[in-house]
Parts: sequence; C-alpha cells; structure tokens
Amino acid sequence: MTRGHLVESRHRGSVAVVDTDGRVVLDLGRVDEPVLPRSAAKALQALPLVASGAADAAGLDDRALALTCSSHSGEPGHVDRVDAMLASVGRAEGDLACGASWPVGVEAARDLARSGHAPTAVHNTCSGKHAGFLVLAHALGAPVDGYTEPDHPVQVEVRAALAAATGGAPAEPVVDGCSAPTWPIPLRALARGFARFGTGVGLSTDHATAATRLRTAVAAEPWFVAGTGRFCTEVMTITGSRAFVKFGAEGVFTAALPALGLGVALKVDDGATRACEVVMATVLARLLPDLDLTRFTHPPIRSWRGVEVGGLRPGAVWADLPS
Amino acid sequence: MTRGHLVESRHRGSVAVVDTDGRVVLDLGRVDEPVLPRSAAKALQALPLVASGAADAAGLDDRALALTCSSHSGEPGHVDRVDAMLASVGRAEGDLACGASWPVGVEAARDLARSGHAPTAVHNTCSGKHAGFLVLAHALGAPVDGYTEPDHPVQVEVRAALAAATGGAPAEPVVDGCSAPTWPIPLRALARGFARFGTGVGLSTDHATAATRLRTAVAAEPWFVAGTGRFCTEVMTITGSRAFVKFGAEGVFTAALPALGLGVALKVDDGATRACEVVMATVLARLLPDLDLTRFTHPPIRSWRGVEVGGLRPGAVWADLPS
Repeated sequence: MTRGHLVESRHRGSVAVVDTDGRVVLDLGRVDEPVLPRSAAKALQALPLVASGAADAAGLDDRALALTCSSHSGEPGHVDRVDAMLASVGRAEGDLACGASWPVGVEAARDLARSGHAPTAVHNTCSGKHAGFLVLAHALGAPVDGYTEPDHPVQVEVRAALAAATGGAPAEPVVDGCSAPTWPIPLRALARGFARFGTGVGLSTDHATAATRLRTAVAAEPWFVAGTGRFCTEVMTITGSRAFVKFGAEGVFTAALPALGLGVALKVDDGATRACEVVMATVLARLLPDLDLTRFTHPPIRSWRGVEVGGLRPGAVWADLPS
Repeated sequence: MTRGHLVESRHRGSVAVVDTDGRVVLDLGRVDEPVLPRSAAKALQALPLVASGAADAAGLDDRALALTCSSHSGEPGHVDRVDAMLASVGRAEGDLACGASWPVGVEAARDLARSGHAPTAVHNTCSGKHAGFLVLAHALGAPVDGYTEPDHPVQVEVRAALAAATGGAPAEPVVDGCSAPTWPIPLRALARGFARFGTGVGLSTDHATAATRLRTAVAAEPWFVAGTGRFCTEVMTITGSRAFVKFGAEGVFTAALPALGLGVALKVDDGATRACEVVMATVLARLLPDLDLTRFTHPPIRSWRGVEVGGLRPGAVWADLPS
C-alpha cells in the first residue's frame, strides 16, 4: 500500500495454483501449511445440498444457489431471497444459528438503520449458507437443532464433500464466526479442491454435476454471491463462467478456472481483505490475460475528499515471476 | 490471532521505546526506517496551537484541547464541541478541509443514519485537529484557504514542532486521509518526540508548557481523544496521566510515559488496528506492571452469537524478552 512516493504498509502471504491432481503451476510462500478456509470454502460446503437432490426438492433457483455459496452484503434482495429459501422448507429466521448481525454492506447497514429496524440472522453475511444447511437437513430428515455441530448429519456430509474435493481428511474443526465448523486445510489441497470444483475431474458424478450447477448459478447471478460493488460480484461480472472466485474472512480467497483446469487458493498472513483481493486479481490477470483487471490489481486509495493519494499494488515478487 | 486451537493470522511490525535523547530501551524490528505517523502525531501537531497562545485566545478548554489531539468517533459530544471551537474564531464546518465522512464510531454512524441526516466534515474523525489548525490560522492572521498545504503558515509551524520534538528535519510530506500533510519519521525519532512530549526535556519552554497542557487535558477528558469503547479512551481512563497514548491509521501507535521519561512508537507492517492495539497494550503492561491491561493485551474474538471462539495475543517474541 503506497501513499504518495512512499510504501506505507506491506502484506505477506501464500498462494497456490494447482491442477486437479494437485500439481503446482504456481506457488509462493507456505502452501503446505493448513489455513482456515472460512467462507472461501462455501461452494464446496454447498455440494451435498445439490448432489443430494435437496436443492431441487426445495425448488432452489440460480439466485438461491448463488446465495448458498455467498458472503452477501445483507441488501434487501439478498434478505428477501434467504427468507424465501427458509420458507420453502417450513423454516424461518429463528431457526438460523449464524447469529444476528448488521449487514456487511456499508450502504445496506445504513439503510437498515434509517429504516429503524434491528438486524436479524437473515442479515448475517452467512445466512445463505445456513439456509442451505437447513434445506439439506430437511431433505435428510435431520433435526434443525444442532445443525452446526460437527457430528450433525449436515456437517458430516459437508466434511465428506470437503475431504473428497481436497483429497484429504480435514483435521479437527474450529468454530467460524457464523458458528458453523471450519476445517483447516493446506492451501495446496484447498486449491486442488477448486480445480476439481471447476472441472468435475476427481469428484463423484453427483458432486461433479452439483459443481457445474453451482458454478452456472453464480456466473448467472453474481450479485447474489456478494453484492453491490463487492469484489466477487464485480470480478465475476467480468469473467462470467471463466472464473469462479470466492472471498473468505481473514485474508483467504479461492478460485476455479474451468477451461484451464486450475484451482487457486491464497491466504494473506495478517487477514487483510484489501490484500487478498489484490493478490486474487493479480493471479486472475496472469491466467486470463485478455481481461483488464487493473482496477482490482491496482485500486487507488483516496482521501475523504476523494483525491487519489496512494494505492494498492501487487508486491515486487510478482514482477520477478516468469509470465 | 487464534481461532480454537489454531493460529489463524499473524501480524509483524516494529517497536521503539526510547528516552528523551533517543537512547533505546527496547527495540524490535526496523526502528530506523521512516513511517508515516498519521494521527499518532496529532499531539505534536497541536503544540504550536497552544504554545502560540492561540488556544488561550480562543478560550479552548480541556475538552477542546483533547479534541485537537483526537481521532474522535463522531459522537454528538465530539461534533458539538468541534462546532463550538470553529465558532470561537468565526469559522464553521464549510471551512474544514478534511472532507465529509461518516463517523468512525460504528454506533455513532448508525445513530446518524437513523436521524436521517448526512455526515459533514465535522463528523470526520480528524475534525478536532483541523479545528485546531483553523484556530491557529486565526491567531497567526493567516488565510483559511490552503491551510493544509505544506507551505501554509500553520503547517510551517507544525513541521517545525515535529522537527524540534523528534530531533530531525522531517522529509517531504505526503497527503493524509484528511488532506493534511503527514511527514515520514523514523520510529526511533518519533518515539523520542513522545519522550520529550511527556517530559518537556529537549523542547523549548513554550513547547514544554504546551505539552504539559495537552497531556493534562487529555488525561482529564480521555473520551474526547477517541470515544465510547475506543482503545485510547479506555486505556487512558485506566492510566490517567501516567501514559498518553495515541492511535494512528495504518497500524501506527505512539505513547508518552512522563514519570519514566520514555516515549513509544510502533508500526504494524500491514496497518492493522487490532494488532497495533495489542502491541501498545503489551508495551504499556511491561512499563506499568501494576496495571491490569489483560483485556487489551489478550482481547477475545467472538462469533456473531457472542461466543468466544478465539483471540488476539502478543507474538512469541515478547515472551523471550527480559522483563
């Protein structure tokens, strides 16, 4: 991060770009250390929902499927659709275990405050994933209570999907901000999971079909996977089905590039969102060089008066890599 | 930053603790590299305002003086007092060059949204510093226009105060988020500036008197230097006049410990507020061991449901230091 003629702040991290067998195309940093994938794994967590037939049984459309993979901004369009997903299986906001939170979208939060209403669990950025868990619980005939516990039938399915895609048995989980389990996975294995998510290679037929369905849904409705002005929405509006990208808390980011047969996983050591976005854009710009992603690889920093006073840019290590 | 049994994210940085001559008591990292002090230098930037007699001429009380050193939350009590400071020299919100911004205090921003009003430059977290600049401009008979330009009489005074306290000639400035200049200063020199701010040793008589006045004001009215629940306010409510601490953007923090004759300056490489707060609390806990600062050195991370799922803690390097 630069300000005027100076480098003001620096971020460090690790990146893995691998194929469906986990062969490394690009690696920087410590790609064999486990990271917590947080929301960057949501698309893999949604595989059992679709593969089981639960999504079809509940009539989930592209927008609903995109929401199951989303970290949405809590805008009214997101909230209304999550409410509808819950209603489709006879559930409601009170069944969500993610906890109430103000929308992560700054404008959405202000609009909610202006309306005089308090936020609920549906406004939580993870409510789409949780609604998906409840749709799956319904199809499995499993109880709602405890659906975020690692030994609940929903999470047993989710863990199996993560293990199958990433090619290893995820270790002991910890608790995500939304109270669901998040399993530590080495970056290289996480990237392989997304290479497989992008191609179906190495997945079961049911999971491969589910992955295609989820990618198609997100490519068609990228607003529902994040929201207005957000990185994932804006970037996938440009890439369309050529790339699936997903942000996670604490500086994690994943991507699938179906035509190239590649998956990407990265972690910024310090957890900064601004840094993981710049690095993901830099990786995408290398892999899809016909696209202009400059506003994501080199976003400006502005004063409160709107004057450009600095910016973010990829670190020097990128300039030294073979193209 | 830990989550469950895992370290999820890591921050790096540098810390200097020095005496009034710049002799190092503790140093970690790169203490001779320039950093941008941003808002962590506000107390030094306020020295000419008091030393010139401008503050007394305008009748600024402890609350107003604390605001001149502040990065306030934009709560109504802050905003009203900044308005009064401006009025005391015949100025108003439209004269501020900092730019309009939503309050940095999350609750204050929501309350403003609920009220149906838009934010102005008085809500900007730097409006107290800027009001101080305008009070000084008034006393100097200098124009309001261009008061944030490095060659304006106000900024010439500010630069001279920074140079005198830190013991060097600050280099070419860059533009802060509030449009004022911020001059790069090595951490060790910045720490010396705060050792001198805390003791008056090495400052001119006028600046030494001004420093005492500003420290006394902030110790008496710590809510006005930050706001409800904010680190600087909470910590100085505990330390009283034993420590002056000031946050700056992009992971900078400064402190003065008058009785010990020490100054502190630190920078987290990646700019994270959560990390610079933990490190400042860790330094204070070493220097003032009778105080319990555990909730600042080891703050919990909670899920949206309020359950403790992890926490922040000082890095292993601290455990290896002699006490």
